[in-house]
Amino acid sequence: MPKIVTEEEKKELREAMYHHTIQLIKEKGMKKITVEDIIQAVGIAKGTFYNYYRSKEELLFHVIQKSEQKLFQTILAIDYKTGDFREKVTTALKEIYLSKDSIVLYLRPEDMESLTEKLPTKAKASVEQKQTNNFQQIAELFGIDSTDLETFGVISYLMDCLHFTAVNVDYGKAARQISLELIVDTLADFLVDKKKKKEHN
Amino acid sequence: MPKIVTEEEKKELREAMYHHTIQLIKEKGMKKITVEDIIQAVGIAKGTFYNYYRSKEELLFHVIQKSEQKLFQTILAIDYKTGDFREKVTTALKEIYLSKDSIVLYLRPEDMESLTEKLPTKAKASVEQKQTNNFQQIAELFGIDSTDLETFGVISYLMDCLHFTAVNVDYGKAARQISLELIVDTLADFLVDKKKKKEHN
Repeated sequence: MPKIVTEEEKKELREAMYHHTIQLIKEKGMKKITVEDIIQAVGIAKGTFYNYYRSKEELLFHVIQKSEQKLFQTILAIDYKTGDFREKVTTALKEIYLSKDSIVLYLRPEDMESLTEKLPTKAKASVEQKQTNNFQQIAELFGIDSTDLETFGVISYLMDCLHFTAVNVDYGKAARQISLELIVDTLADFLVDKKKKKEHN
Repeated sequence: MPKIVTEEEKKELREAMYHHTIQLIKEKGMKKITVEDIIQAVGIAKGTFYNYYRSKEELLFHVIQKSEQKLFQTILAIDYKTGDFREKVTTALKEIYLSKDSIVLYLRPEDMESLTEKLPTKAKASVEQKQTNNFQQIAELFGIDSTDLETFGVISYLMDCLHFTAVNVDYGKAARQISLELIVDTLADFLVDKKKKKEHN
């Protein structure tokens, strides 16, 4: 007779799979993870894995989405209207690109692309929509006019630089950390400058 | 009887091929250029082309090398020891990444890779050696200690960001220009800071 699993136990198992997958992404990169790795890390049977996810891709997709939403919630929770705006923006950007928990640093664009390619078109479109929404919501919080395409362009270029620096060739851990901090500062300065100019108009 | 071509005429033809190829790289990108494009632009017969270069790749390789060496000479010609160091460094970086003549902005890393792959191993090694030499010579001029791997790492990351911004997705011409300027400023500030610290020691 199969063991009866309570909702609480299911939730715990999902949590365990989430945390171990995040760990595995950090250790060996998204592309190299196998279902075998996951079931070994969590300590479950292969059959149990497939009770929860139809494929490795479905799990990875779920884990990355969840991790990004968590990150997004952290950014949203910061109150940008009171206190030092520059400091708050820097904190938010560092949370995304420099915190140890941030999954962003371990996701190579090409890996993400090959993952979303394996997803149904609907899921793919929903990811893109969600990302655009998140981006616009953050922009609004940062006081950026959503019709100002030039400013959006600069932010996009600098955020791409951050991402590129985070996942690209390795010139040394310390150098990467310093470079990320320099670009975060550049982006924060730019945002502060834009905000000031907007307030003056 | 074949027409006799003087050395002067040969040199002029090579120059014409150089300038038209640069123009073609800027207009349609390195990957899409054909021998047909080049002979049409220069106004020569196919046979004439092959008197000078064995393949399209050989020409492209020659043109890019020459263009990069010209750029390198411009950077070397700046006197960094007198006057405002920050201003000079900014000028040099803008010469590389923002000047209209700079070929760097039109060379996507993947195109360069597929070009060098088609070259003999010896040529490939010589390119890499030359690039390392150029980089070290510039670093020395900028007053950077060649054993300071952390500083070299940061410079490499920021230069990659410049290159990435120059050739990556298009978020708008103005936004690209602003972003390149911001990163040039960040890199210049970093170099000035390093120089100051070195002088204090």
